[in-house]
Amino acid sequence: MLNILSELREQLGDDAVLDRATVAARARNYWDPAPLEARALVRPRSTQELSRVMKICHARDQSVVVHGGLTGVCDADRSTDQDVVVSLESMTAIEEIDAVGRTVTVQAGCRLQNLQQAAEQQGLYFPLDLGARGSCTVGGNVATNAGGTNVIRFGMMRSLVLGLEAVLPDGTVISSMNRMLKNNSGYDLKQLFVGSEGTLGIVTRMVLTLKERSQSVNTVLVAVDTGEKLPPLLKEMDRRLGGTMSSFEAMWGHYYRAVTAPGWHTSPLDRRHAFYVIVEAQGPDPVDDARRFQTAIEAVLEAKLITDAVLPKSVAERERIWAIREDFEALRQHTPLFLYDISLPIRDMLAYAEEVRMSLQKQWPHSQFFALGHIGDGNLHFFVTPGIAATDVATLHAMSDELVYRPLARLGGAVSAEHGIGLEKKAWLAVSRSPAEIELMRTLKRTLDPKNILNPGKVIDGWANSSA
Amino acid sequence: MLNILSELREQLGDDAVLDRATVAARARNYWDPAPLEARALVRPRSTQELSRVMKICHARDQSVVVHGGLTGVCDADRSTDQDVVVSLESMTAIEEIDAVGRTVTVQAGCRLQNLQQAAEQQGLYFPLDLGARGSCTVGGNVATNAGGTNVIRFGMMRSLVLGLEAVLPDGTVISSMNRMLKNNSGYDLKQLFVGSEGTLGIVTRMVLTLKERSQSVNTVLVAVDTGEKLPPLLKEMDRRLGGTMSSFEAMWGHYYRAVTAPGWHTSPLDRRHAFYVIVEAQGPDPVDDARRFQTAIEAVLEAKLITDAVLPKSVAERERIWAIREDFEALRQHTPLFLYDISLPIRDMLAYAEEVRMSLQKQWPHSQFFALGHIGDGNLHFFVTPGIAATDVATLHAMSDELVYRPLARLGGAVSAEHGIGLEKKAWLAVSRSPAEIELMRTLKRTLDPKNILNPGKVIDGWANSSA
Repeated sequence: MLNILSELREQLGDDAVLDRATVAARARNYWDPAPLEARALVRPRSTQELSRVMKICHARDQSVVVHGGLTGVCDADRSTDQDVVVSLESMTAIEEIDAVGRTVTVQAGCRLQNLQQAAEQQGLYFPLDLGARGSCTVGGNVATNAGGTNVIRFGMMRSLVLGLEAVLPDGTVISSMNRMLKNNSGYDLKQLFVGSEGTLGIVTRMVLTLKERSQSVNTVLVAVDTGEKLPPLLKEMDRRLGGTMSSFEAMWGHYYRAVTAPGWHTSPLDRRHAFYVIVEAQGPDPVDDARRFQTAIEAVLEAKLITDAVLPKSVAERERIWAIREDFEALRQHTPLFLYDISLPIRDMLAYAEEVRMSLQKQWPHSQFFALGHIGDGNLHFFVTPGIAATDVATLHAMSDELVYRPLARLGGAVSAEHGIGLEKKAWLAVSRSPAEIELMRTLKRTLDPKNILNPGKVIDGWANSSA
Repeated sequence: MLNILSELREQLGDDAVLDRATVAARARNYWDPAPLEARALVRPRSTQELSRVMKICHARDQSVVVHGGLTGVCDADRSTDQDVVVSLESMTAIEEIDAVGRTVTVQAGCRLQNLQQAAEQQGLYFPLDLGARGSCTVGGNVATNAGGTNVIRFGMMRSLVLGLEAVLPDGTVISSMNRMLKNNSGYDLKQLFVGSEGTLGIVTRMVLTLKERSQSVNTVLVAVDTGEKLPPLLKEMDRRLGGTMSSFEAMWGHYYRAVTAPGWHTSPLDRRHAFYVIVEAQGPDPVDDARRFQTAIEAVLEAKLITDAVLPKSVAERERIWAIREDFEALRQHTPLFLYDISLPIRDMLAYAEEVRMSLQKQWPHSQFFALGHIGDGNLHFFVTPGIAATDVATLHAMSDELVYRPLARLGGAVSAEHGIGLEKKAWLAVSRSPAEIELMRTLKRTLDPKNILNPGKVIDGWANSSA
């Protein structure tokens, strides 16, 4: 019997299969420069090639880890030197844009930004957007059900996927390349592969929905003096902007001050406010939309929901405002720094954030807590730094996790809003999901991947120990 | 051992369990007045009661058929005298409206219209809407992934469900009552139960997302002289109305003339046009929105995309326009009358409709074909009447199905856009789905319902003959 490297090369050609040494020249992922470990890295050029790869791996009980753009933050892309890595990097084509049906057919390895630009060239718009747009792939966006800054209007990646093609662990190709907004012809199988982080199948191609491109973008940065005003502000802006509000991004004062400290971003507003919010709307008519946006801001100022506001007067000014939200390089001076991504009902958000801040403070008097979030989605991100010399980072991280995640159980919150579970949050899944739910997840995993070869150990644990 | 009626009564009380004779006083469903057949009808008052019911049925290998509002058109509610019917009619509560998070927690038996009204009383809006709103239940809307007239803006029921609770065939309760727009904590199990027509579990409660209530509704009925103008009209209206267009409902001239014939609806436009479209937008500002809507209509008139237009001047006039679209009582004089609900890429829609009309005409020279549809969703509905004396309706229906469904395979179309598969379309599922997809559906069914007791024989066939 050939070794697996030889067998894969025989099937796909030498170019498509990198050996252990070549693989080691790559970084593990976007965040971790350590050498990538894998028995081999395969880059299939088509669904059919991937199907052959999976048949080989399945026959050999060979574990497989899937790589997209490697920008995920929960270690779902982590491999060992015993794994075969499947990278979608040779499947990057935008196969077709249907301007009438407003759909795009695209391969999984295409970068999000390339897709956004291709849509724009046709006068159309792909609404998923997130900071990693230049590196992340649409296949990764599907596998993690990516969110980002436009979810309040356009939904998460799941709601933008009309159809997809996936390869199961045994090499079976499930092609559900639906192109219609409505299709109730049997079970909606694509849902199995969206957000399951490559544990049930490998997505290779997809049909995504496109929207008409907006004719105007209006943005404002506002200051808010108490957290109680955030929900009514959200509601009032949404009501006044009708269907056009696309972002409502809140920043806690601590976060804002840290990223606008001298030497970092320039603050266009006084830096001493309790909260800051970026509101953005995309509409059909530059003149009307600007006037409506202005009127809405005046109304919330008059109603004392906000205390100050600044409207960017150029694209560059708009970008500088967004940079405050998206670029938190300034926080990296604090080490260790733990990033969180949780969600909970909006009405509980402020009290929760305060509870976490207080308990961190109690644990570590010099700890700092920097919060921001997609408030309208119930989604908070925050950074925690314990503020003590890091002798044992893993232990500190686990203690921080405990303080952050534990209160979510009582509130019906989620330990992952948009980043996924991967390896990093697996231990905390039970905070958000019941034993019956986790058992049903395991049942699905066992059914689709009875040999547990696809991204094994990601998302759910204890698979091997609980076979039915 | 007690008989099942006694055992169910012992568990739930006499009120909650109707016997065979009492059941027979009910109609089969909204469309079929024949007596309902069932061994018993159970109406649990809670998820826990339903769990006990399913445990009993599971232990006895007792088949169960689920009843919501009984307005489905594909026979997914069909029972025999050997089945136990579970009706959600005692679970109708709207448990909570969270005005801050803009969610509603509701039991499955609640009627859609009651939910719409409850939201409205809080200044909020539940966007799913369809003709059966007064009879259908939100549980049925989830089970069939209902669509309707607002999908182009707000999506189908699937995209409005944040969380749900379901009882599996063995009585296990899966409670995934998430209330956030973003939650990627493990597999999104609720997707299994949305659109699977009660074959994988019985949905008992759910959390749905609410929107801000609009301040304006603008409606227009326009006439279009060739089908080629429909896609650019859709695109132009959508572009000009920004995020506010909620409906784009086309009617073919044959349909329009039939329902506005003397004695039926009054036509506000000349009746000889090739196509008619209702466009509706919901926005935040009565004055601005009306002006923008008017400007958009003038622009498409000037561009000759439409040949005539009428704007309703009152709520009553608006309702009369919608009645032309929603009330097709006039068609019932044609018997037999077969209703279709298909979807396909928008660019292929006109040619497809013409192909079907021609092949029906060739088969039955006096046949008639009345089409209308949610064009923007790729969804066509049409009525076919063969125009010959109905000696054997089933054979005529099958012949009609053949002419309607067969061309969809080539076009990547769907035999069900929004009605589901049920029993009626099961034979045609393979037109829209591949053998691998259907096998995966069977795998899911076998995994969740190994005894095949829940809505057996609905959606997918051959379950018993293909066990792994």
